[in-house]
Amino acid sequence: MAENEDVSEDLYWRTGVSEVEPENVSIRGYDLEDLIGLPFGAMAFLLIRSRLPTPAETKVFDALLTGVLDYGLQKPGTAAARYVVSSNPNMQAGLATAALAAGDFSLAPENAARFIQERHREFIEAGSGDLEAFARSVVEDADRTRLRIPGFGHPVFKGVDPRGAKLKKIAQEAGLWGEPARLYEAIHAEFIKNPKRSHFPINDVGILAAISIAIGLSPEESTAMAIIGTLPGVTAHISEELNARKPVRVIPPKDTYTSISRRDVVADLKDAGWDCP
Amino acid sequence: MAENEDVSEDLYWRTGVSEVEPENVSIRGYDLEDLIGLPFGAMAFLLIRSRLPTPAETKVFDALLTGVLDYGLQKPGTAAARYVVSSNPNMQAGLATAALAAGDFSLAPENAARFIQERHREFIEAGSGDLEAFARSVVEDADRTRLRIPGFGHPVFKGVDPRGAKLKKIAQEAGLWGEPARLYEAIHAEFIKNPKRSHFPINDVGILAAISIAIGLSPEESTAMAIIGTLPGVTAHISEELNARKPVRVIPPKDTYTSISRRDVVADLKDAGWDCP
Amino acid sequence: MAENEDVSEDLYWRTGVSEVEPENVSIRGYDLEDLIGLPFGAMAFLLIRSRLPTPAETKVFDALLTGVLDYGLQKPGTAAARYVVSSNPNMQAGLATAALAAGDFSLAPENAARFIQERHREFIEAGSGDLEAFARSVVEDADRTRLRIPGFGHPVFKGVDPRGAKLKKIAQEAGLWGEPARLYEAIHAEFIKNPKRSHFPINDVGILAAISIAIGLSPEESTAMAIIGTLPGVTAHISEELNARKPVRVIPPKDTYTSISRRDVVADLKDAGWDCP
Amino acid sequence: MAENEDVSEDLYWRTGVSEVEPENVSIRGYDLEDLIGLPFGAMAFLLIRSRLPTPAETKVFDALLTGVLDYGLQKPGTAAARYVVSSNPNMQAGLATAALAAGDFSLAPENAARFIQERHREFIEAGSGDLEAFARSVVEDADRTRLRIPGFGHPVFKGVDPRGAKLKKIAQEAGLWGEPARLYEAIHAEFIKNPKRSHFPINDVGILAAISIAIGLSPEESTAMAIIGTLPGVTAHISEELNARKPVRVIPPKDTYTSISRRDVVADLKDAGWDCP
Repeated sequence: MAENEDVSEDLYWRTGVSEVEPENVSIRGYDLEDLIGLPFGAMAFLLIRSRLPTPAETKVFDALLTGVLDYGLQKPGTAAARYVVSSNPNMQAGLATAALAAGDFSLAPENAARFIQERHREFIEAGSGDLEAFARSVVEDADRTRLRIPGFGHPVFKGVDPRGAKLKKIAQEAGLWGEPARLYEAIHAEFIKNPKRSHFPINDVGILAAISIAIGLSPEESTAMAIIGTLPGVTAHISEELNARKPVRVIPPKDTYTSISRRDVVADLKDAGWDCP
Repeated sequence: MAENEDVSEDLYWRTGVSEVEPENVSIRGYDLEDLIGLPFGAMAFLLIRSRLPTPAETKVFDALLTGVLDYGLQKPGTAAARYVVSSNPNMQAGLATAALAAGDFSLAPENAARFIQERHREFIEAGSGDLEAFARSVVEDADRTRLRIPGFGHPVFKGVDPRGAKLKKIAQEAGLWGEPARLYEAIHAEFIKNPKRSHFPINDVGILAAISIAIGLSPEESTAMAIIGTLPGVTAHISEELNARKPVRVIPPKDTYTSISRRDVVADLKDAGWDCP
Repeated sequence: MAENEDVSEDLYWRTGVSEVEPENVSIRGYDLEDLIGLPFGAMAFLLIRSRLPTPAETKVFDALLTGVLDYGLQKPGTAAARYVVSSNPNMQAGLATAALAAGDFSLAPENAARFIQERHREFIEAGSGDLEAFARSVVEDADRTRLRIPGFGHPVFKGVDPRGAKLKKIAQEAGLWGEPARLYEAIHAEFIKNPKRSHFPINDVGILAAISIAIGLSPEESTAMAIIGTLPGVTAHISEELNARKPVRVIPPKDTYTSISRRDVVADLKDAGWDCP
Repeated sequence: MAENEDVSEDLYWRTGVSEVEPENVSIRGYDLEDLIGLPFGAMAFLLIRSRLPTPAETKVFDALLTGVLDYGLQKPGTAAARYVVSSNPNMQAGLATAALAAGDFSLAPENAARFIQERHREFIEAGSGDLEAFARSVVEDADRTRLRIPGFGHPVFKGVDPRGAKLKKIAQEAGLWGEPARLYEAIHAEFIKNPKRSHFPINDVGILAAISIAIGLSPEESTAMAIIGTLPGVTAHISEELNARKPVRVIPPKDTYTSISRRDVVADLKDAGWDCP
């Protein structure tokens, strides 16, 4: 980059994502105009991994982005977004709300991804090459320290989670089901040897995490992809809500138990030491 | 400010809120250490109006901040915040969500404040000094153009909104119920001459807007104060939710009507012109 | 849907986006498992338009999603997201921030989309069929009422905005450059007859708005697609920031002009009528 | 509560914050009308602690809310909020952004509060009553496991942080500097015996955490109070930004080092295995 050749690398900000010049925007080195109209999944891969994906990688990346898609009103972020726009009819506010609802209890594969990444790093460092033995020690450790292994079990599906199975199939057919994913499966195989949990599948979040690692995403980026993947559905719900013309949604009082005893403010202020008339 | 004397005013950013030096933070000209522990309402006034309030102004400002306080689960922002933290147990995400729910249909006095401010500006410019006549023309204009005047009417209260009445009383006793507020009342008096709306009170949002203008806030700042005023209540609700241990709240299916017909993806893709196996 | 056949349509919530049953999730009528792995752009179309797109529509939809992609640190939402995660290293918070930065001054084609949609509705209602004559009256009206027509002009590009040109080419080749878009072009042609603005192109936001209308999106949905389209780039920037290990970014003091005079809090409190020691 | 007497406690939602009836809102048992106009700090205490504070508690609570107040443009959340509203001129979006910027690296006393709370619980459970001995073991443990103790050290202040000192003085004068705070001080006293860190003060965040625990807040609530306390300042900054008329703020290019090499998209797609013309 001739323009920056003599520029210090000590500047306050650094970026390698894009370069913006008056007449040209270069995205990871490619002219924006050349990228407009290419499939969005491939472009998302380019932005994050800093290189163009192969067709196989694009297929898996699309699977990652479509692994959840929507969950009706059974997803906290969608419910929250509809409440928000019922009062503030603003698309941006609704989408931001849905993003904020991803976390420890839904839509964030990052805990499982971090688990897989760290266990695989330890496996590599241990150097034994024996997946089964390593998996056994992981489950024993988890049992002893009462650590929950993320991504196992489902409230409905026993044995197999069909969404997880479909995701795994796509990754395997693409040749992108790597060693970390196989280690995770070995851990799962060991985990279900305990009869009390023999029916626990690897759930869809677990598989999404495994694929995210296989495709080179950081744990945080796996959460970002889960969020982006659900935003078209959230958009559809926000449109429904804007068209519903039910301003100011509330929690239906019939669903709420309220337990409050009436009190007297003047008496209680005096009791609390205030000097009031 | 000796330090900045020779500094160009052309810098990219300008601020007059605070000055931060290594050993000293000056807030609107006062040392932060001297302000710590003063009443929060007075400090909020200082930050926004750039001068210390009188005791009367502080009283009215506290009224502004306590005008809503909480509305149980009957407020969209509180519902949304609880949904969000049921999935992402994070205080910041919950508070941000509640802020985003302020808007055209609740918790944003700014539309009413803008109405009062603009009408009062026109009244001053007209120069007649006759509040009643001007109010009459405002209502006639609104009726002709079918414009809803913000801040009038309440789903429950007829004639008087007791919260609005309390707020007005505090502002009047403080001597801070100014001409814009009186003009708004005159418009209301004219408005309820129509028998069909004779029972419409000025509601609490309307009074909050009138007081905001009286105390020198911009319309946007009136919304900010309404938001800040409810955040302690939102905090209490988020704590309740974090303690409820009900991860992943959903909209109860019994409250939802879903209308979807099943379709076949392969057939429909072909119909749409795709070439698929 | 047998389960709901006898269910009242009067329930508090209604949705037609998805149906969630214990063992099955149906998205716009299709089994989630059948959709996993299809291209994300097509799935976004399905969620929002409630039907599968044709290949041509998918191409245009991908163009919509890739029309901006990234703008380095020259985009307020990206800057804001990096500031946020420098203090709160949390992907969700960063993505939500970027979504909130879409608005009147960037990343929200909805104002232009609303303009096109409303003018086209008036054109249909007028019934003359003469695009040029109607366009002339639109520009005359705008000039008379000093209304800015959204989507015209660019700080750098004169005559043609190459990104806009690429987007238009894709839509035209797909046969999806409809009458609203042609009306918008006619308005533009009329607009640049004024020599002072003869060099104003339709900019990329204007073209994105025109395509959004052509493809059946609501104005708010056009903003949603612009936001979603930039989130992979925002994800990349957040990853850069999380790896930068520069906690607590600030506005560099050298970029800031601060104008504050020191004051004495005790003296000023007394002046304001407070009774303090 | 007569109305709910026969209502099951099994309802989906439960709350004890407020009860909303058509004509009455009861906040923690008090009529909203009776609370309007009371000092905001006392009301915030009521909402969160579910009882009215004493005058001493109110003083300390106000100290908590005014402990930071503002930090000019040297606070990531304020910078982020100004970037956001420069594109989306919306108060709510700006305030939400500022809330999201509280986190591990600033404005979130909760890590320190959690540390104090947990160490104090262990101290109670240990039952020895010897603060100094327990403090010594805490520091030894931290040194051995290389755990950073939160709330110690300041980039500028050596020995004493004057803001922390002021906060402590207020809490002590109010008689609200309890055993957990004294334990934290004992840990600090032990910590600075190491000559390399003899100049580390307890910083303002550490003292805010100690006071939060003393006043009965949960760690998450301490973060909420820090956020609420800074929002009036953020409001002032947003107003400045809305008045600055500098739409679409960017990171000044002169502050940015961009490192990107140009690439050819067609060649690279072919290399990646794509079949393109």
